[in-house]
Amino acid sequence: MQKQEPTYLKAITLRELDDIYSLKNDIQNKIILILRITPLAQKNIDGLRKAIDELYSFIKNFDGDMVRLGDERIIITPPNVKIWRPNNKLK
Amino acid sequence: MQKQEPTYLKAITLRELDDIYSLKNDIQNKIILILRITPLAQKNIDGLRKAIDELYSFIKNFDGDMVRLGDERIIITPPNVKIWRPNNKLK
Repeated sequence: MQKQEPTYLKAITLRELDDIYSLKNDIQNKIILILRITPLAQKNIDGLRKAIDELYSFIKNFDGDMVRLGDERIIITPPNVKIWRPNNKLK
Repeated sequence: MQKQEPTYLKAITLRELDDIYSLKNDIQNKIILILRITPLAQKNIDGLRKAIDELYSFIKNFDGDMVRLGDERIIITPPNVKIWRPNNKLK
């Protein structure tokens, strides 16, 4: 039996709109991202909206998923990782 | 080529010490857990310590991993998911 390749999980911080290029790279490499968004939110709320929109389109094209985690973070998953939603809502 | 089984990710809240039984079950089912620990911390800090110790021993026997995520959460991963640590520290 072939050994399954591990999936990696990165918990990182979104500080600049330009950070999304390396995040897209991580998404293409099928890395699970737990992204702290408050530093960019406090600095540039329009930049944050643009970053989230771009990442959302990118992840949807890629058959991945994205959800909010509390007030400070979002979770982005590659196609092989499914986010469990009780009643369509994360606690 | 055989299709790879998806890994599930659950973001849930630890409210009672007894919640660890269902969490151990999730760990055995190789589910990634993002666990909000503040509700138990505020109610019963000794209970929280006991819960974390028990989950840590359990996950280590199972070849999984556990890290803190900010002040409110911990991440628990099954053996097939590796947590990326830049300089051994999550931002």
